[in-house]
Order: sequence, then structure tokens, then C-alpha cells
Amino acid sequence: MRPLIAALLLGFALPATAMAQSVADLRNDAKTPGDVLTYGMGYNQQRFSPLKQINRKTVKHLVPAWSYSMASNYGEESQALVKDGVIYITSHDKTVAVDALTGKEIWKTTIEYPPETTKTVCCGIVNRGAALYEGRLYRTTLDTHVIALDMKTGKEVWNVKSSDTADGAAMTGAPIVANGVLVNGIAGAEFGVRGFLEGHDLETGKQLWRLYTVPGEGEKGSETWPNGGAKASGGSTWTTGSYDPDLDLVFWGIGNPAPWNPLDRKGDDLYTNSIIAFRPKTGEMVWHYQMSPNDPFDHDGVNALVQADLKIGGKVQKVVMQAGRNGFFYVLDRATGKLLAANNYVKVTWANGIDLKTGRPNWTIDMKSVIESASKISTWPSISGGTNWFPMSYSPLTGLAYVNTLDMGMEYQPLPIEQVQNLKTGQPHYGVKITNIYPESGNRGILKAIDPLSGKAKWQVPFKSANWAGTMATAGGLVFTGALTGEFMAFDSETGKMLWQFQTPSGIIGQPITWERNGKQYVTVTSGTGGVYVLKIPDANLAHVPPGGSLWTFKLMED
Amino acid sequence: MRPLIAALLLGFALPATAMAQSVADLRNDAKTPGDVLTYGMGYNQQRFSPLKQINRKTVKHLVPAWSYSMASNYGEESQALVKDGVIYITSHDKTVAVDALTGKEIWKTTIEYPPETTKTVCCGIVNRGAALYEGRLYRTTLDTHVIALDMKTGKEVWNVKSSDTADGAAMTGAPIVANGVLVNGIAGAEFGVRGFLEGHDLETGKQLWRLYTVPGEGEKGSETWPNGGAKASGGSTWTTGSYDPDLDLVFWGIGNPAPWNPLDRKGDDLYTNSIIAFRPKTGEMVWHYQMSPNDPFDHDGVNALVQADLKIGGKVQKVVMQAGRNGFFYVLDRATGKLLAANNYVKVTWANGIDLKTGRPNWTIDMKSVIESASKISTWPSISGGTNWFPMSYSPLTGLAYVNTLDMGMEYQPLPIEQVQNLKTGQPHYGVKITNIYPESGNRGILKAIDPLSGKAKWQVPFKSANWAGTMATAGGLVFTGALTGEFMAFDSETGKMLWQFQTPSGIIGQPITWERNGKQYVTVTSGTGGVYVLKIPDANLAHVPPGGSLWTFKLMED
Repeated sequence: MRPLIAALLLGFALPATAMAQSVADLRNDAKTPGDVLTYGMGYNQQRFSPLKQINRKTVKHLVPAWSYSMASNYGEESQALVKDGVIYITSHDKTVAVDALTGKEIWKTTIEYPPETTKTVCCGIVNRGAALYEGRLYRTTLDTHVIALDMKTGKEVWNVKSSDTADGAAMTGAPIVANGVLVNGIAGAEFGVRGFLEGHDLETGKQLWRLYTVPGEGEKGSETWPNGGAKASGGSTWTTGSYDPDLDLVFWGIGNPAPWNPLDRKGDDLYTNSIIAFRPKTGEMVWHYQMSPNDPFDHDGVNALVQADLKIGGKVQKVVMQAGRNGFFYVLDRATGKLLAANNYVKVTWANGIDLKTGRPNWTIDMKSVIESASKISTWPSISGGTNWFPMSYSPLTGLAYVNTLDMGMEYQPLPIEQVQNLKTGQPHYGVKITNIYPESGNRGILKAIDPLSGKAKWQVPFKSANWAGTMATAGGLVFTGALTGEFMAFDSETGKMLWQFQTPSGIIGQPITWERNGKQYVTVTSGTGGVYVLKIPDANLAHVPPGGSLWTFKLMED
Repeated sequence: MRPLIAALLLGFALPATAMAQSVADLRNDAKTPGDVLTYGMGYNQQRFSPLKQINRKTVKHLVPAWSYSMASNYGEESQALVKDGVIYITSHDKTVAVDALTGKEIWKTTIEYPPETTKTVCCGIVNRGAALYEGRLYRTTLDTHVIALDMKTGKEVWNVKSSDTADGAAMTGAPIVANGVLVNGIAGAEFGVRGFLEGHDLETGKQLWRLYTVPGEGEKGSETWPNGGAKASGGSTWTTGSYDPDLDLVFWGIGNPAPWNPLDRKGDDLYTNSIIAFRPKTGEMVWHYQMSPNDPFDHDGVNALVQADLKIGGKVQKVVMQAGRNGFFYVLDRATGKLLAANNYVKVTWANGIDLKTGRPNWTIDMKSVIESASKISTWPSISGGTNWFPMSYSPLTGLAYVNTLDMGMEYQPLPIEQVQNLKTGQPHYGVKITNIYPESGNRGILKAIDPLSGKAKWQVPFKSANWAGTMATAGGLVFTGALTGEFMAFDSETGKMLWQFQTPSGIIGQPITWERNGKQYVTVTSGTGGVYVLKIPDANLAHVPPGGSLWTFKLMED
């Protein structure tokens, strides 16, 4: 027996220095399944694992290893991280370190924020995750603090306040560490926040730069707003971008303009509903691509940005792709932002396709009637989008993206322009009348295996309610995701056949991960319903789903 | 294939009339493992199941079948009931019906009580269970309502208020149905409540009788109090009695006198710290046996009363037995109340045994010095007792009682008499100074397999913290119980060897049950820490146990 293996079998603890994740650790995260150091299971955010001990054949033996109570009735949207046998998980009011094999709490650090903070959180009292780097855990808080904790003890290393919650700002997304800088976004377009990204010094928390996502008066891009950008707001950045260390570019999805009502902001409204690429050291924007100019539908551009190497026209291209909230699946050259493909992956009625040359949508008559004459229309997808913030995954083995899509439309009409002309920051920025409409099938959610270049589904599985959870693909030929009715499920990545499920105590709106330790593969996910769909969209199918947060780890049953 | 089996395999629903549990159903509950209709898994409260599919050999394959969130951070002490494939569970703020095989909620009925109610609940915002009878579920509420719900819909059938919470009264125990009457008790001796039992009409909720557990002025037993019973209070009835339908006797444990300080109530203080037998139709007391006369130590007589047929001196006798909070294991003839055996099962320093003839304890010098001169002493067991409310089980196969015992003593001194002479109902009734003391071993809890007649342990398993959960024994040779650190565990009933455990999300203070459906055995228990030990006794070992309630069902892994 070789010494290394002996050490593993004897369960020797790794030396303390093992905690110091390096730049290389982060860069290789997708290829080192013993840990999960990044949001997205790798800088490329593919949420794909090379692990295959749990596979199509063995998954039927998957059973809970342990469960840990999050002690909260708010939603649990966070993705867990794993390092050296410890799982790190965030929620709106705490950060917890749990022994990965036993489920025993190691430390818990609570967050106190003023109760009024929640008044300007539109869509759920949640947090989506953390970043790890060199022995520290970085996260944001609902009241817009960015904080660093010691990974061993949970003790706060630094804590900086970013914004004023009275202005409608909140933070719910996971930050990332890119090229030695902590990068985080902001939420609050629904309350007129002017969106931004910012970089913080990892050691001290000092703000290094701020990149506003809507230009100030007279700045570049302000010409796409009326009055030279005087009223530009929105463009929040409430999810997490992905990073390409070779190009040294961070890709980030930018949210909707404010208010939703488009009548008082005619023009493209840059950089709302766009994907932007920027330098993490400086915040310098390198390129942008806008999916929905002058968006009236809250079709946020924030959905997950997954990097992959795709064969296009016989040539392998480095792309970044997004299942857009507006219903189109976008594939961009990630070095330049050039549009390579854009096809609808759900029912879309606001645009007849995207012009590959200009990158612009071909508006339908319906869409024009909204912008030009404030008409009432029936349109697809709904305000919730073709999918929403919960991240898709991509398997390089199947070449498919696994997306919890939404099959919902809406009756929509902008309110008269007068109602949105004098909104103040911190007030609700809606100004529209919306009623959701549903397909006759009665299925609001469809898990799809989507070909990125055509937008077509190789297979699809319908669900009565929307699924509001992330997906994860594995080399074991599996796709994992969760239902709002609480089932944690595994599907065959080639056929969509459901191979396994387990009823967790509440609805699932989290993001599954998988990892290995001592030669054994595990799967971890949160249960705990919440989030905007559950809060705001009536769904009788969810009437009997209780709230209550918990963290779960599954393993293959021992013989 | 015979038709009955075919129907089962096809999963046909039972006809609606199957819901009407009869008197015979309740009487046979311990022998019909397809359902659990009674608190205690049978009128005899043995918490013994004849099921043996899950046994010493197969238990290693036990895995969670599902989990259901109780959506509360208070403690979950309730015992589940099962009928026709539905699990019924209570908590302080809700009653829930859950599909037993899937964990899906069928209905949930919430309870609203005034927040100030909790001010006079000494020992945990909890509920311990319900009673089922002829399509209705009966339970009590923290604000002393007794209610009946329709088992199919959860709709309230009737709701009667029993007492005034401003006087310190609360209800946390499960009622029982005995001889056509709903019998329930009351909590609140710590606030000077005058304890009682009461009978309610099953159809209407009308109160049929009330049996006070401490006599009024001049009534029988009042001679055991100073001043002819003028100040008699205490004697609460906060757990659940057992019933012998052949004798038509209900056995109920009576709590401590109020205040704890004994100086102003010299005398036996009947019927505090007693076991009483009464007729459920009328509330007529038939016999009583007092364990701790003039008790200064809060040695409530409320611990579980388990009926069994024991061979004593070559003759099988019908007994009722109790692992008393005062440290002695009592065996009584249940027809007459005659004491048959009383031996300490934990360290006891307040009495040198119990006189079998008189039934009275032989007080030690220490004990006398407390009563006579208000001395400060070190004494065992502590205020928490040799065990506490969480029920023991008894296996007729091994002849052993399985008890989560406590290995804790205390430094104790009554405060001067003046401090307890003018207490008003609703005020705290303590008047003592107590510091818990612990054994050098550092183990506060010991699971013991106790011979009822000798009090001696055949085996014992130590735990760092107290266990605060019920036990259950099965014909599969197993004893199930839970730890405050969250492990749900199975032990060999003959040897005490731990054969299986699973880490639940919070501490366990519930009461396991087992049942079968379609030929498959299941085990159900709640997780969710709370209760008096967790609330009031410092224990560093529990520093990292989160709160959060959930209901769990386990099954053997399919091949």
C-alpha cells in the first residue's frame, strides 16, 4: 500500500496549509471533484462533474447520508461549497460550516440586519452562495454588506458596507474571486437602484472599483436613454458571473431597466438586459451584448453564463452561453461578444428571432404595439422568463444544456406614462399590469436538455409546477435537480428518464453539487421553499408544501 | 392470488368506513401494527411492536423514506399516530396529516394562541400527541383548549376552553380515549396551578367531570397539607396516562406540589407525586400510590406508566410500572395499587430504599435536613430526575424496560419560607436554589435496559448529553431512540450494541413508532430540538445543534 493511500484510509487530517486555496485551485475547480470551491462548480459554471460512481446504474441506491437544519422558514437558494471535508453554506441570516461526512455543525456565524431591509427585497429573503479563497469565505448580505470570514472559525475578518438599503439596494448573490479581486453585484432594479458591479480587495475589503451598469448623464451609453441618461436606472447584477482566467474576462448578466414600464425610457437602455465582459482587476468593460433592448417585460439578463468549447461550423469555439429570460438561448464568442447563435428554447411571441448579424431581436407586432401604443397583449414568456435565475448545467459529454424551463405567458399592459414619471429611488418601479397565463397542459415547468446551437430540446420532462432549482450534470450520465414539491431527482442525461427521487421536507430552490472524499461520491443540496415564484405566483399544487430549510447530503448505500 | 392480496398489491384505497376506529381497535392497538392509534403504541403504553422485518440483521439497511418539514424552531416532542396510510402529528402550532408512504401533506390545521400564553409555559413550547377515535383526532393546545378535528379534512369539529392561562395553566400532553370519554390533563404546577384531570364528551366536547389532584379545603386528602389544604396547589398532570380496559381503570402520574420549596407545605401533600387510578366515565379515584411525600425536588410523578404481566414470586401479576423521576423503579399491582417492587435504577441519595410494606421512602439524613432545617445538600437525582417525561418502552420478549436515564445530581437548598408564603397563581412557584452537578465520567445520559423488579441494568450505553427522547422496543430485537445531538439510533435489545444510526437535522426529543403497510415495516420519528433540558441546562456538547422541526419515516432499502 502506498503511503498516500494509507493516509487516506486512516483518515489523517490534511495539514492546515491545505486550506490555502490558490489561484490554480480555483482555476482547476471543475476538474478536482474532491472539492467545490466556486459558484457554478468551476469558473466556467458548467455545473458538470467528472464523477461517475453515482451513475445510471447505481443511482437507485442513493440514500440520505445526513441532514442539517438551517433553522429558517425562508427560502434556501444557496449553492454549497466544499473544501477539505467541510461544507460551507450560506442563508439570509447565517453562514455555516458543516462536517461533510457527518453533517455535524463546525461553526455558525449569524447575520443581523435591520428588519426594514426586507421591505425592498422584491423576490425572496435569500442568499445564493459564497466564494472561497486562501482560507477565507466571502459573501454578501441582504443589507449590502460584503464580508470575509475565517474558514476555520467563522470569525469575521472584515465587513464593508456597499450601499444604502433605503434606496432599494440588496445583495443576494454569490461573489466570485477573479484575478485576485472579489467581485460582487447588487439587486434592486425593482426599486430603482442604479446597478453596478464592484471589486473589493481580498485582504482588507477596500473597494477597488465600481462599474455602473447604466451610464450616468452624458457617459458612454447614455445616448440609449432619453434625456441623455438623466433618469437611467435598473440594470441590477443580482446573480453571479463566470470567469475565464485565460482571457482574464468576467462575464456578468445585467438585469432589467427600471421601471418595468418602458414608456418613459424609449431607446435601448444600455446596459440593461445585456451580457457584459470586464476586467476583474479594474472593472473595465471590454464588450457587451444586449439581448432585450427597451425591455418592457422584466426579462432580466441575469441568467447563468456558462462557458464551453462548442464545435460550430466544424471549428471549436470558446463560447459563453445563456438560456435567456426572454426565451432565446444565446451563444456568444466569449473573447469578442459576437453572437454565434440565438434560438428560442421556449414559446416566444415578442420577437420573431434574433438577427445574427446585428444581434438585435426582430420585434413582433405585439411587441411594437406595447412600446409604441401601450397596448394590452398576451405574450410569452411571462415576466418569470423562459427560465429564471436558477442555473442551468452543461455536459461536455452530451453537448446539452440542462435547463428548468418555464412554460408560462402573461397578459401584459403598461400603465399610463404619468404613473412612472416621478418615481423615487426606493419606491417600487413597476408601472405595469400583469396576469400570468398558463398552457392548457397544466404543466408550468419543463426540464429540457437543450442543444445550445439550435435551442431545440433532445428530451423534456414536464412538471405541474415550475421547477425553481439549479441543475447539475455528471459524467455518470445523470442530471440532478429539485422540485418545488420537495422531490430531489436524478434523470438520465441522454433520455430524460427519471431514475431516482427522494422526498425532502420542503420545496427545493437550491443548487445541487457533487463531490468525493476517500474515494466515495456524495451529492449535496438544500431543501427549503421560498423565492419569487412561491411568494408571488398562485399555484394550488404547492398548497401543501411546508417551508423549512435544511441541508442534505446523499451517498450510495453501503452493502 | 387471493382477492385481498390482489387489492393490496393494486393499492386500492380502503373504504371510508375504515376510518371509524372502534373501541376494539383501540383495545387491540398494540397487536395491530398496521396502525398506531394510541399514545404509547397501545393502551398498555409498552411502546413495543411485534413487527420484526426491521431486525438485528436488516437494520443496517434502514434508510430515510422521506422527511416532512414542521416549519417551526420549537421542540418536536410529539408521538405520531398512523391510520389507513396516514400519519397524524401535532406540534405547538399545528396538526398535520401526512401520507405515510410519500411524506406528502394531506392537510394542515394551524393553531393560534395569544403570545403571552408562552410566559407561563415552564419547560418548552411543545405538544406531545393526539388521540384518534371514530374519524376524529383529539388534542390539547398550549392555551388549554381541547379540540376535535375531522381526520379526513383537519376541520375543527369542536373546541372547548378548559382553563385560564393567566393562572399559569397550559396543556402539552396527549389526551386518551377511554371507555367512551376523552381524558386530558393540565400543566402549570410551576405557576401554582391546582392540577386536575378532566373528561370530555367525544361528540360535543362537553366537560363530563373534573378530578382535582390536590384536595380542596376539608376534602379527603386535605389533611396531608397544612391548614387543611387551604394552600394546596400543584399536582399537574402534563403527561398521558395508560388505560386497562379490563379493569376499566386509567392510571395517571401526578406532578410536583407547588411551590417546589417544601417548607410551607409540611405533610405528604396528596396527591402530588403519586400514581392514581380512576374510572374514565366518572373521574372517580379508585386507588393512589404516592412515591415522594412532601417532595422538595420537583420529582414529578408523571413519568410513563407502562402496564405488563410480570412473573413475581412464581405468579404472573398484572402490574403498572414507572421509572420514577425520584430515581426508583416502581412496580404496582394495577388492580389495587399495592407496591410490589421499588428499587433505585440510578444513583439516589434522598432515600435509603422504599418500605415495601408501607410504600413509603426511608428518608436519608440529607433529605430530613432539607425538610426540617432547610439545609443545603448535594443530592441525586437532580431536579430532572432519574428520567423525565420521555417515555420508556418495555419488551415482553426480554422482560426489560428501556429507559433513557439521567446521571445528574444537584446542589440544592430551599429559600427561606417567607419567600414562598404569599405566592399568587400565575407567579413562578419555585423558592429554591439549585445548581446541577454532573458525574466525573462526563456522561449525563445513560440508556439502560432495566429489570423492573430489581431496578438493575442488564446493559447500559452512556451518552455525553442527556437523551431526551422516548424509546421503542420491537420483536425484531431492537430498541430505537434519539439523541439531543440529532442521531436516530437502533440498539440490540439484548446487548445494547448500537446497530444503526442516522444524523437527523436537529436534536431528537420525540417518540419513535413503527408500523407496516403493504407488508413493509416503517419507523417514524420527529427531529427538532427543544424541551426543558435544552432550554435551561447548559450543555456545551449541544452548542452546535440547530433547531428546526421535521418528521421522518425510515424504511429498509429496496434491492
